[in-house]
Amino acid sequence: MMKRLGAEFVGTFWLVLGGCGSAVLAANFGGEGNPLGIGLLGVALAFGLTVLTGAYALGHISGGHFNPAVSLGLWAGGRFAARDLLPYVVAQVAGAILAGFILLQIASGTASFAMDAKAAGAFASNGYGALSPGGYGVTAAFLCEVVMTAMFLVVILGVTGPRAPAGFAPLAIGLALTLIHLISIPVTNTSVNPARSTGVALFAGPAAISQLWLFWLAPLLGGLLGGFLHRMLDRE
Amino acid sequence: MMKRLGAEFVGTFWLVLGGCGSAVLAANFGGEGNPLGIGLLGVALAFGLTVLTGAYALGHISGGHFNPAVSLGLWAGGRFAARDLLPYVVAQVAGAILAGFILLQIASGTASFAMDAKAAGAFASNGYGALSPGGYGVTAAFLCEVVMTAMFLVVILGVTGPRAPAGFAPLAIGLALTLIHLISIPVTNTSVNPARSTGVALFAGPAAISQLWLFWLAPLLGGLLGGFLHRMLDRE
Amino acid sequence: MMKRLGAEFVGTFWLVLGGCGSAVLAANFGGEGNPLGIGLLGVALAFGLTVLTGAYALGHISGGHFNPAVSLGLWAGGRFAARDLLPYVVAQVAGAILAGFILLQIASGTASFAMDAKAAGAFASNGYGALSPGGYGVTAAFLCEVVMTAMFLVVILGVTGPRAPAGFAPLAIGLALTLIHLISIPVTNTSVNPARSTGVALFAGPAAISQLWLFWLAPLLGGLLGGFLHRMLDRE
Amino acid sequence: MMKRLGAEFVGTFWLVLGGCGSAVLAANFGGEGNPLGIGLLGVALAFGLTVLTGAYALGHISGGHFNPAVSLGLWAGGRFAARDLLPYVVAQVAGAILAGFILLQIASGTASFAMDAKAAGAFASNGYGALSPGGYGVTAAFLCEVVMTAMFLVVILGVTGPRAPAGFAPLAIGLALTLIHLISIPVTNTSVNPARSTGVALFAGPAAISQLWLFWLAPLLGGLLGGFLHRMLDRE
Repeated sequence: MMKRLGAEFVGTFWLVLGGCGSAVLAANFGGEGNPLGIGLLGVALAFGLTVLTGAYALGHISGGHFNPAVSLGLWAGGRFAARDLLPYVVAQVAGAILAGFILLQIASGTASFAMDAKAAGAFASNGYGALSPGGYGVTAAFLCEVVMTAMFLVVILGVTGPRAPAGFAPLAIGLALTLIHLISIPVTNTSVNPARSTGVALFAGPAAISQLWLFWLAPLLGGLLGGFLHRMLDRE
Repeated sequence: MMKRLGAEFVGTFWLVLGGCGSAVLAANFGGEGNPLGIGLLGVALAFGLTVLTGAYALGHISGGHFNPAVSLGLWAGGRFAARDLLPYVVAQVAGAILAGFILLQIASGTASFAMDAKAAGAFASNGYGALSPGGYGVTAAFLCEVVMTAMFLVVILGVTGPRAPAGFAPLAIGLALTLIHLISIPVTNTSVNPARSTGVALFAGPAAISQLWLFWLAPLLGGLLGGFLHRMLDRE
Repeated sequence: MMKRLGAEFVGTFWLVLGGCGSAVLAANFGGEGNPLGIGLLGVALAFGLTVLTGAYALGHISGGHFNPAVSLGLWAGGRFAARDLLPYVVAQVAGAILAGFILLQIASGTASFAMDAKAAGAFASNGYGALSPGGYGVTAAFLCEVVMTAMFLVVILGVTGPRAPAGFAPLAIGLALTLIHLISIPVTNTSVNPARSTGVALFAGPAAISQLWLFWLAPLLGGLLGGFLHRMLDRE
Repeated sequence: MMKRLGAEFVGTFWLVLGGCGSAVLAANFGGEGNPLGIGLLGVALAFGLTVLTGAYALGHISGGHFNPAVSLGLWAGGRFAARDLLPYVVAQVAGAILAGFILLQIASGTASFAMDAKAAGAFASNGYGALSPGGYGVTAAFLCEVVMTAMFLVVILGVTGPRAPAGFAPLAIGLALTLIHLISIPVTNTSVNPARSTGVALFAGPAAISQLWLFWLAPLLGGLLGGFLHRMLDRE
């Protein structure tokens, strides 16, 4: 079990360091409006590649969840034991927080770094209303996170089933996360992962922390829905 | 059969929500001219990834068509039963319409949302003439949709044949859809899929609906041509 | 043999329609300086995806060369019969010319279309000196085309050898072509493929045609070098 | 052994020519601020694709390291013999220097080429402080290179282990390098590879050379850490 928790810890660390790191360090490189920066497309690709690479590297150890909503959704889909849920979530959140800490050390190493805790997307945090990158309200944010997480689980459960082609699951799952970011960064800065939200919100400040509830509740609910939807779709 | 139709419903829902969603929510993020937005490249990638992920997740259930022109082309290529055509198309269109509805709920959640039903590409709708993103006339639009759909079917039928390497079909098919969008978004906003066109046109308004005939006729014709072209290429 | 030539014809048609089509129709969408357009990155991806999808779909029929320099390089690497070279090249060039023709029909369907035959990269043509996108002289252009094509063949011969993992060759070859475009579009608009150069030069006008010699000579030389380099690297 | 060293020479040549070549020739195409250029996202993709294609093509000969920090990390992970370390590193550095030389011949073929040796990222060189693209100090640069290289090795060792799905390793490793560049180009222009740093610094001038120590020390240290971390994660 310690090996599995270690893999979840490292994988979630990689997800937050890579995904949020690309957003904090490279999305706006050269100043806003400069096309040298990687933009939302680059951030979407980075998030997906953290999972693609992490799942190929560590998936055989822990299953490669790196996300409490995924662990819960796999339980709802009948693929994960309830007694492993809590330790997995703790390891994921711990890895995410370490990533937030390391990222802050790197990001603050340049004179131009400044964190406006009241700005949408500060330190790659998730948010709604005034903290949504595109100014989306709480209802749209909640709906978006639920639907995206549910479809994420439909993909995950589908591609890891016995009838899906072997070996392609990390590719499809990672690129599903890229796709989800391509759609929904403007809405909530895209969570679908409570550990990812927590790992940066703690450093982004009280505004982000005060909205963290949604990024636990909606992804977990979406994970459950996705798990049940998969059962309806893929079984008799 | 209900399981297969369920998979087609969910897969087409995902195609429209993800592809059209990325276009509506993220393509112009930050305002036109802002390189943070994902642009046509990001939208092209999103459309492809909906099919890549959907086909890996659901392909073993229904074949993963998610597109009436694909179902028809597979029939023309000798791979799909005529009696399944109508139920597949109904499920695909229903999934596409639900996606348009959900997307509208999310997109309208920000104060800056406004749909100009007379603008090219409104709510990610397809169009020609005044409704073509690049102002392409009806002949160019028709030719483009036919050729693109035909080549899409050549790829699909080729990569799902018995001599193609196993497991790679969803990858190649998804990326073929990305490629098609990289070429043809300026011409028609890219359909090659009557369900995708219908799912958003119903919400985009009468102008888009009045041009919907082309995005049924041309893709279906292209699908037929692609199916027959494959038979010529790949058989004795 | 007719089946193989048909596959080469269709595959090269797809390569030129998709790669050059994305450049002509979508690279500068919205006007120069508008980040909505897919830019060089999108064109690079499109070229690679034509080969990736074409090789997965048609590779089992003809080998999926779609390029005279590849056919010659495979001969130099000991993998292709000399007597098949000429018919393959004829089929490839014919497919490329048809693609140029169809592309012109689509591209000219908008009022804003105008082809300045004296501009670098007109109708996605290749060039050096005044016709190089970045103003690179003939020596740099020749060197670049030789080196890029040689490395393209090293990749192709390496990934299609008996010890490479099965099924991944079209993925690696397609993405190698994307990589080559990411490097060298500014130098020559990237050929590494005499058929691709010919298929659009015929429509781009006399300036492009007058430079076509380099885009036959350099890629063919590079193909030979790559074939011999592979023999040195991979054999005892 | 000569065959293996030849493969490492050619593979590292390709890595530097492709990765640094895309940065020098295409990142800012059209002038700074022009979205036609491939930007940091294109450069990140190019670096990853050099390794993806090189490892699929040459991996069966030499293992496909193309990087002294990878060779050292593989030794730390128990997968590479100590006696092969020095010859591998020599071949890698030699290939990188040849790539820098060839790249300079191509790049200097246009009148607009000028190398400001005191500018950050000159000739795609790595740097910190005044030579960091984003002005990051030596501590952040060192930390970033160590962490990125360590995670690179965790991925490499994980995906090449006996329990990872066969054939996907070059895909995951190449895309891991893309991910690392998406995060860290602004910090150090991204090395994680002493051979890559050396191959261009020699041509970029004394400023880049004077900072080369960090891009040997930090990646090698990161490689060791990654090797040991893998042993902790993946073994009993």
